[in-house]
Amino acid sequence: MNAVIAIHGGAGTITREDLSAAQERDYRAALEHVLLGGQGILERGGSALDAVTEAVFRLEECPLFNAGKGAVFTHAGTHELDASIMDGRSLAAGAVACVKSLRNPILAARRVMEDGRHVLLVGEGAEAFARDAGLETVAPGYYFTEARYAQWRRALAEGRSGLLDHDAQALAARPEAIGARMGTVGAVALDAQGNLAAATSTGGVTDKCVGRVGDSPLIGAGCYANNRSAAVSCTGTGETFIRLLAAYDVGALMEYRGLALADACEIVVMQKLPAIGGLGGLIAVDAQGTVCMPFNSEGMYRGEARAGGARATAIYRPSAAPRAAEEWRPA
Amino acid sequence: MNAVIAIHGGAGTITREDLSAAQERDYRAALEHVLLGGQGILERGGSALDAVTEAVFRLEECPLFNAGKGAVFTHAGTHELDASIMDGRSLAAGAVACVKSLRNPILAARRVMEDGRHVLLVGEGAEAFARDAGLETVAPGYYFTEARYAQWRRALAEGRSGLLDHDAQALAARPEAIGARMGTVGAVALDAQGNLAAATSTGGVTDKCVGRVGDSPLIGAGCYANNRSAAVSCTGTGETFIRLLAAYDVGALMEYRGLALADACEIVVMQKLPAIGGLGGLIAVDAQGTVCMPFNSEGMYRGEARAGGARATAIYRPSAAPRAAEEWRPA
Repeated sequence: MNAVIAIHGGAGTITREDLSAAQERDYRAALEHVLLGGQGILERGGSALDAVTEAVFRLEECPLFNAGKGAVFTHAGTHELDASIMDGRSLAAGAVACVKSLRNPILAARRVMEDGRHVLLVGEGAEAFARDAGLETVAPGYYFTEARYAQWRRALAEGRSGLLDHDAQALAARPEAIGARMGTVGAVALDAQGNLAAATSTGGVTDKCVGRVGDSPLIGAGCYANNRSAAVSCTGTGETFIRLLAAYDVGALMEYRGLALADACEIVVMQKLPAIGGLGGLIAVDAQGTVCMPFNSEGMYRGEARAGGARATAIYRPSAAPRAAEEWRPA
Repeated sequence: MNAVIAIHGGAGTITREDLSAAQERDYRAALEHVLLGGQGILERGGSALDAVTEAVFRLEECPLFNAGKGAVFTHAGTHELDASIMDGRSLAAGAVACVKSLRNPILAARRVMEDGRHVLLVGEGAEAFARDAGLETVAPGYYFTEARYAQWRRALAEGRSGLLDHDAQALAARPEAIGARMGTVGAVALDAQGNLAAATSTGGVTDKCVGRVGDSPLIGAGCYANNRSAAVSCTGTGETFIRLLAAYDVGALMEYRGLALADACEIVVMQKLPAIGGLGGLIAVDAQGTVCMPFNSEGMYRGEARAGGARATAIYRPSAAPRAAEEWRPA
């Protein structure tokens, strides 16, 4: 069995200087906890769909990541969350965007997919659907974390309201501002039955315009799965991922051009995205269990675990000067 | 100069029995008026972007089509409109979804694109952005038409609330219900400078769940433009177009597999969509000015005009028994 799960907790300007040793330990422990959930499901013969749902659920529950609890603030000081999921076997998909009261947007996306009538529900309609499905709602204060609040106050003080990160000039001028303001979580998996699945969830970008939707809840942009090619979950400057259909593009390059997963990922992340000012990365797995996690930013919180195998987590760019002998280490 | 514009007013179960001669005349006259607007811009050397904006603006203004005035009703008896636009030269894109007070969603999508910070804005955030940009707002009653109201009342009476049209079994059982409940408008164009553009706008599906977003405002699903391949605008059972990334898929098949426009359209509309229960069609133009308008439903309101050439409109399937000698006729 070559069942495997890969996860990410967001890409951005994450350098060794940004994180204390204690913070790094916290992030690695959180990624390990998330991997354990997905890996356990795969080892018990569970589906890729269940594994990515569980992993993204755990990432949403963790306040360190920008999804569910710990989501960033909008310009209005509110929280608006997006999530999506796709089944590579049937191409069934579900997503919600701009929800403000759901504890776990990924569970709402999953219900939308299972219900089968819709693919994308937004705003109050999405919340009503989720409530009817019995999903847990929370008061706005649930999402609050001190760290995200401080980021939002800094963004307001800098008067950069509404500035999103696909502005290449702004990026070049202030690259250090990006990592603190982005963040998305996601998971991709291959199960023992040979089925692929992908899931993505986010709070968006700090100080975002109310109503702004990035790539995370958009099938083909921030999330895609197809047994014929790959399962993909993206993180980065969302607007550029939308314009390139980044997640589906990996699959299309494989299916239509016959490329291997790594080559398709390389073209999308290292060539096409930078060409339009796109920063970020993605995680992907193909039907043979090959995992790729390319990013063109300084770092990406990420991890990988095979059924019956070791778990590995990483944060920084492999080419950066290593702190330990091997940065990509078993957890 | 091979500048050309193509438009659609929605695909569905539109048979000769459904339309009286007077209704057919009305639709053809409306399509002609829309074509004139886009064609005039192209003949004066205007951009593809301006031509598709003007064409979709005119389609939104016409109460016959399900976009802008004449939009269908949601299950709650309200109107929620979606629109998108994409520039094939730069891959810039803009879209709005679930807006309830904008007279012309396509103009809001265009402003989102020109502003450049976002690609997709939804709900009240999109409306606030459009108001700040000086776009016209209307009271909910503006969208009202007797015909759409009657459709909604029939849908409510049939108790089929929330049923969307990608349910293949439901479609097979009641195909006649589809044409009356779908509808989207769109335009694609090639200008004299060799640039492509696409635009799409819709009121969605009659009796749709509040918050449901179909393919129309989603880049790559219902709208796509890329000078390297084609400009595409879709209409049909939206959820299936989302799952296939139908609009981008036409471009990907051309760019990655080297297919001609007609062959790429054939695969998407006649093979991939039906395989997952998808009904509808699309209009597309490539960089050489080739126009394709395939659909797998009974009919699609459509038209085509070359700069300096004749305008042609059509409604039914070409293979159906012709009413006149040539159904696809110069307007």
